[in-house]
Amino acid sequence: MRSNIHLALVHFPVYDKTGEIVVSSVTTLDVHDISRICRTYGVSGFYVVTPLKTQQALVDRLIGHWLTGYGAVYNPTRKEALLKTQVKNSLQDVVSDIEQQCGEKPRTIVTDARKFPRNIGYDAMRQEMGKESPYLLIFGTGWGLERNIIENADFVLSPIEGLDKYNHLPVRAAIAIILDRLAGIHR
Amino acid sequence: MRSNIHLALVHFPVYDKTGEIVVSSVTTLDVHDISRICRTYGVSGFYVVTPLKTQQALVDRLIGHWLTGYGAVYNPTRKEALLKTQVKNSLQDVVSDIEQQCGEKPRTIVTDARKFPRNIGYDAMRQEMGKESPYLLIFGTGWGLERNIIENADFVLSPIEGLDKYNHLPVRAAIAIILDRLAGIHR
Repeated sequence: MRSNIHLALVHFPVYDKTGEIVVSSVTTLDVHDISRICRTYGVSGFYVVTPLKTQQALVDRLIGHWLTGYGAVYNPTRKEALLKTQVKNSLQDVVSDIEQQCGEKPRTIVTDARKFPRNIGYDAMRQEMGKESPYLLIFGTGWGLERNIIENADFVLSPIEGLDKYNHLPVRAAIAIILDRLAGIHR
Repeated sequence: MRSNIHLALVHFPVYDKTGEIVVSSVTTLDVHDISRICRTYGVSGFYVVTPLKTQQALVDRLIGHWLTGYGAVYNPTRKEALLKTQVKNSLQDVVSDIEQQCGEKPRTIVTDARKFPRNIGYDAMRQEMGKESPYLLIFGTGWGLERNIIENADFVLSPIEGLDKYNHLPVRAAIAIILDRLAGIHR
């Protein structure tokens, strides 16, 4: 199990259905599901990225409920899952936070439903991640990460291939599958 | 990609938090997420199992909205995902339906967060599933499938191992990971 993996769920800048760049809404279920998935695979930190103050407050309240509110007593495994979840204003803030913690900037990894010439496969990525350096997996909500984030990333993972090129996985499911491929114990 | 895989999400009989056998409520998001995951991995049929007529009606209405209602126009990929989703009264009805379609009863596969002496690993299961016969993957909601379902299953998959034995994945995530291990194209 790797502890050098960090994960960001980005709500801005992402595309909407029509190709416009928007701020997508935080889905509280994403926060819960992805926190539990990250805890399962030993991810060091899960960052919910949104510039909207009201949405940041929503995530903070959710985390507070399960960490110190009634939720902590009602469901301690949920508390455990949320211990490493936090909200950040921007992807830049996430990178700075990791740099402060680890003493170096993380290498960034993105995925996209489209194929890119520089796509890296899962086995190769897993091997690369055997190094001590921190890695940041970046996932977009809505209709995907804004183009510049993809272009500036250190690595672009191959898409998850479905039957007949179908690729409309929920982001929650894509994260589970990708972490399992990159950090899972398979036996 | 296999087309001999069927999948059932069971809402009765399952355990609740206190160990009582209950009917859990259908989560509409489960229906959406799992339909999309099943479509990605070419699952032949996804069955939502509940004996409650009101819950059956809820699932039927949801499917109807996306197949023939406004949803079909709004989001055709969602329609495509739900084409093979249906609701059934009981696991027995699911088995009968598959038997009718395929001419033979499916071999049943369950997972559980606990380890069992007869656990089968993912590579071995994937190899076994290379046969032509139909297979039915059975997943429980709530706090897991009632004991007799586990005991009567043909195969019990090894649990997905998390860091420090943490195993509290959402059922949606467990299904994504398990289908990827059993039927995914990894490269």
